[in-house]
Amino acid sequence: MYTNLKRTLAKECVKKVGETVKVQGWVKKVRHLGNISFLVIRDRTGEIQCVLEGELAGFIVETESVIEAIGEVVSTNQTSLGVELLSKSVKVMNKNSLLPFEVNKKEVKAGLENLLNHRVLSLRHEKIASIFKIKATLEEAFREYLTGLGFIRIFTPKIVSQGAEGGANVFTLNYFGKEAFLAQSPQFYKQMMVASGLECVFEIGAVYRAEEHNSSRHLNEYISLDVELGFIEGFEELMELETEVLKYMFEKVKEKNKNELNLLKIEVPIITEIPKLTVHEASEILKKRYKKEMSEGDLNSEGEKLIANYIKETTGSDFVFITEYPRESRPMYTMPSENGLTKSFDLLYKGLEITSGGERIHEYEMLAASFREKGLNEENFENYLNTFKYGVPPHGGFAIGLERLTAKLLGLMNVREASAFPRDINRLTP
Amino acid sequence: MYTNLKRTLAKECVKKVGETVKVQGWVKKVRHLGNISFLVIRDRTGEIQCVLEGELAGFIVETESVIEAIGEVVSTNQTSLGVELLSKSVKVMNKNSLLPFEVNKKEVKAGLENLLNHRVLSLRHEKIASIFKIKATLEEAFREYLTGLGFIRIFTPKIVSQGAEGGANVFTLNYFGKEAFLAQSPQFYKQMMVASGLECVFEIGAVYRAEEHNSSRHLNEYISLDVELGFIEGFEELMELETEVLKYMFEKVKEKNKNELNLLKIEVPIITEIPKLTVHEASEILKKRYKKEMSEGDLNSEGEKLIANYIKETTGSDFVFITEYPRESRPMYTMPSENGLTKSFDLLYKGLEITSGGERIHEYEMLAASFREKGLNEENFENYLNTFKYGVPPHGGFAIGLERLTAKLLGLMNVREASAFPRDINRLTP
Repeated sequence: MYTNLKRTLAKECVKKVGETVKVQGWVKKVRHLGNISFLVIRDRTGEIQCVLEGELAGFIVETESVIEAIGEVVSTNQTSLGVELLSKSVKVMNKNSLLPFEVNKKEVKAGLENLLNHRVLSLRHEKIASIFKIKATLEEAFREYLTGLGFIRIFTPKIVSQGAEGGANVFTLNYFGKEAFLAQSPQFYKQMMVASGLECVFEIGAVYRAEEHNSSRHLNEYISLDVELGFIEGFEELMELETEVLKYMFEKVKEKNKNELNLLKIEVPIITEIPKLTVHEASEILKKRYKKEMSEGDLNSEGEKLIANYIKETTGSDFVFITEYPRESRPMYTMPSENGLTKSFDLLYKGLEITSGGERIHEYEMLAASFREKGLNEENFENYLNTFKYGVPPHGGFAIGLERLTAKLLGLMNVREASAFPRDINRLTP
Repeated sequence: MYTNLKRTLAKECVKKVGETVKVQGWVKKVRHLGNISFLVIRDRTGEIQCVLEGELAGFIVETESVIEAIGEVVSTNQTSLGVELLSKSVKVMNKNSLLPFEVNKKEVKAGLENLLNHRVLSLRHEKIASIFKIKATLEEAFREYLTGLGFIRIFTPKIVSQGAEGGANVFTLNYFGKEAFLAQSPQFYKQMMVASGLECVFEIGAVYRAEEHNSSRHLNEYISLDVELGFIEGFEELMELETEVLKYMFEKVKEKNKNELNLLKIEVPIITEIPKLTVHEASEILKKRYKKEMSEGDLNSEGEKLIANYIKETTGSDFVFITEYPRESRPMYTMPSENGLTKSFDLLYKGLEITSGGERIHEYEMLAASFREKGLNEENFENYLNTFKYGVPPHGGFAIGLERLTAKLLGLMNVREASAFPRDINRLTP
């Protein structure tokens, strides 16, 4: 009986009043009221109440078990969906054991470590699942926008023979008897792909930082949204492009994730123009307004937060570009400008760095000299450096940390909350 | 003069007859004919011929240098584009040194190792660049199709505490003093994300196999297109979904990559239904028709090729699903069926396995027993196994090897040709 019935999703039931349907999902709630029981089933689209009468009343099942209910869809004003199921049969598909914490209340009452230890369960809570639906939209929008501009999606290796940032903080592995590293960024490779004639490329992939930080801002493995493009006229172009990309990403979230944003009570900011400050200007503001002396030419995390507050107060923007970092605080491939500065920028979002970017050196001799000045052995970077002998156009790019962007947009206290299975100095599981 | 002129791409020049434009790209060819020189500039959209007269004639530049030409677009019947540039100025933006091989002939005459050693150069050849444009479309179409069905894109860690296939062939790394591994597949994590209530998920990411093969079919790092979904009614559903996904991917390539397909002289097959054979049926065919005795219940690579030929001859299909592998040849999470077989399948494309898939075990006790039968210590897989205590629905999935799919579609002899920077037992650079 009913064996040929296909599954109907909770949300689709509203269109099937009067029909017999099969619903499958997780048991969110069970209530028994004398001769009648109510069972709320949750699936990926929402939840539906099943009414159990007669023989079915008093049906015993643990919440979070997987269940199937077959019944007639009827209209009701008792549920927010506007329909419920008059059940004809109920069947436990897979039973649940005792839960370490409750996931069916309005809020999950468990600490972050507990939530992360039991990720499969914590994700059953719709507020937590919402984070990952929004993260997926951000990434999709990033690629959609760039593909629309003719950028090509590239795939570059994460097992590499040299770190792109000069060798510190890399994870080491044994590659068939040779020493190899996990890529800290696709920096060299994305530049090489620009030079290969693809010109405008992007990559979405994991990057690895063996940093011993244990802060709310750091992950040792995270998703980097990388962009690199050739034939740029200046590094300002890169900031313009990033502004447009972020604008599109936020608009897509507003459009696709209405439910999730409502649940999380998040208003997505409208990005117009993003204010810019040079590092020098930022230091002056910190000195004059906040009496803070920063080490010349860089902002620490306290400085970043103060500048973010200043920009928010004076312009209303959650974002600010900090530009023209001095050479000593940027990697060897950064294009210098005048007075020991570089054509580089960071983007702060609510006081957190979510992007580094800039123009790169495209001439062989200048690049080789820059490696030497940083005390790096050119021979170790031969494959990358040789690229620059074969005609590389002026180019630059940037990278957005996806988890940081998600966390800041959603007001999460810790970037780990935006990673399904975060890796940090203490955490290698689940 | 002209400093405010924005760059015009080669292909866009056809719409700008009579206008003065700035073109930037790589020098493909230079010819001098007395008082006139011809310079062909290639950019990411195509190529345009620049006519150099008067003072500009005789302009000396190495091919593959980066160049800028400003001039008037005029109609001509001398070029396939239908226009050329009457140059007013030419400027070398970055010069090229001597090339290790020629990239501007109809074919690149260099061996695979040489091409891979100089990837930036070999990609300058439009036939080679075409491979990566098509690969990008395949991946984009994969995600587009699944997103359309409501699947959520997930990101799972590649640094893991256990290999998903039972521990062999994994790369080992030092993770802050602990032993860790590079993920062979996102298998455990994608199942966990189904169980988390997201139900239908996909992932696009690198996977790592420390296999010492050195064949035309193997890469040690490759891109896996992973799918996993809950509440399936049988493993046949998975093969249907994969058929639809592949159909969409191939249609998108036909639509978006006309130029590239023309260049490579590839006709994309129309996928209708994909034939299915059980492993047992395949073995019988090998025995009767080809006098080959295979070890019971699995096909080796010779067997896969013969079966592919047989299916091509008898049905015209380049694809064939091989189903119901015996338990001993499948991983511990595979759902058993009767007679020691499993609800599993492989997909062969032109005789090469491009997919493994199947239904997974969703009940804790059955799964724990399966681990034990395979001689695996349950305690080492605690995080994964515990998931199954909390109500996991029937589910299954599959994974497509992106480089293998690309290579077979484009008739490439070696899967390394479909990887920009392949990693194999000998190759860790560039």
